[in-house]
Amino acid sequence: MDVGLFFTLEGPDGSGKSTQIKRLAERLEESGIRYVTTREPGGTPISDRIRSLLLDPNNVEMTAKTEALLYAASRAQHVAEVIRPALEAGIVVICDRYIDASLAYQATGLGLPIRYVRELNEQATDGLWPTRTYLIDVPAEVGIGRVAQSRGTGLDRIEQRDMNYHTRVREQFLQIAGEEPQRFCVLDGTRTIDEVTDSIWADVRQFLIAE
Amino acid sequence: MDVGLFFTLEGPDGSGKSTQIKRLAERLEESGIRYVTTREPGGTPISDRIRSLLLDPNNVEMTAKTEALLYAASRAQHVAEVIRPALEAGIVVICDRYIDASLAYQATGLGLPIRYVRELNEQATDGLWPTRTYLIDVPAEVGIGRVAQSRGTGLDRIEQRDMNYHTRVREQFLQIAGEEPQRFCVLDGTRTIDEVTDSIWADVRQFLIAE
Repeated sequence: MDVGLFFTLEGPDGSGKSTQIKRLAERLEESGIRYVTTREPGGTPISDRIRSLLLDPNNVEMTAKTEALLYAASRAQHVAEVIRPALEAGIVVICDRYIDASLAYQATGLGLPIRYVRELNEQATDGLWPTRTYLIDVPAEVGIGRVAQSRGTGLDRIEQRDMNYHTRVREQFLQIAGEEPQRFCVLDGTRTIDEVTDSIWADVRQFLIAE
Repeated sequence: MDVGLFFTLEGPDGSGKSTQIKRLAERLEESGIRYVTTREPGGTPISDRIRSLLLDPNNVEMTAKTEALLYAASRAQHVAEVIRPALEAGIVVICDRYIDASLAYQATGLGLPIRYVRELNEQATDGLWPTRTYLIDVPAEVGIGRVAQSRGTGLDRIEQRDMNYHTRVREQFLQIAGEEPQRFCVLDGTRTIDEVTDSIWADVRQFLIAE
């Protein structure tokens, strides 16, 4: 293949994305397929510096617009420096969070118009959308509960927001997925880790075979 | 007055903006007028952290879009946290650089569509434009020459760009000013500091009297 497949994982905090990405990477490795895993916000040195600004719990004054613009800036750099070059080299890209996360966390979550956030990010990425997006759905309280338990350090600036916020984020993820059934694959994140991995892998394989 | 006047100063690096802002502040002080001076990128703790990212000469990989988005993020925070609250309190705001600088440095300078940069910033600031903008015009080589001479430290990431870049920036500033003659007041920055100060002050006073 001369253009790589672009897979993203989305879902509330604590939905198990990181674990699933590790599992998916192992299976691609075993299948001898070239891939990179990356994450947002971050993925490049500049984007990582933006990440630390975004997640720093001290930045209480940050407005919704500043937050959305910083995510878009981080993403623009990530796409230009990492994602697009990998895809052009025929490498499979697996990314932890992408534009859909901004539609859920910044648009719906913070009350910015969804059209504004979508256009901002389409321009930032020159319209690069994933081949397939795996949405791991868990109730907001389950997700945040898992994060609070497993994390040694405290919650970051976004995670600290109230349950109402996290519930709106979850609902928005489900709504976006419903609007783009061809791109989205929604998974029940309350199932066992193995079950979720098997579902994702079964789906990913179809794309690998098609190539 | 219940809404403050918003003055911005623009011009190539080394055009003498900072000196003129100090002079203007002194005259407002003497006249007993409430004012704040601020600058971009920066002006708030969050915006200052974005500033350090933008000007760090190590960030050689930063793309034009990332740069434009970071300036817009910094500006969104600055307007929401400092400029708009001051204006609403009837305080005169004097700002070193604003949207016009992004139109010159990011759009024309880096080849981004001017319409994209304008819309990005209009949305970031909820359409807040200055009452009056003083463009201190100097040839690019004069400006950069002054900066190189006066600065103890090296040039920042933007200043380091070649003379061709700085010449395009200057030309763009003059063009924008020509398109909005009612907002812009263009000053010849090769005149003496006192002459430029007197011209700015004569112009500012008209607005103060009108209020």
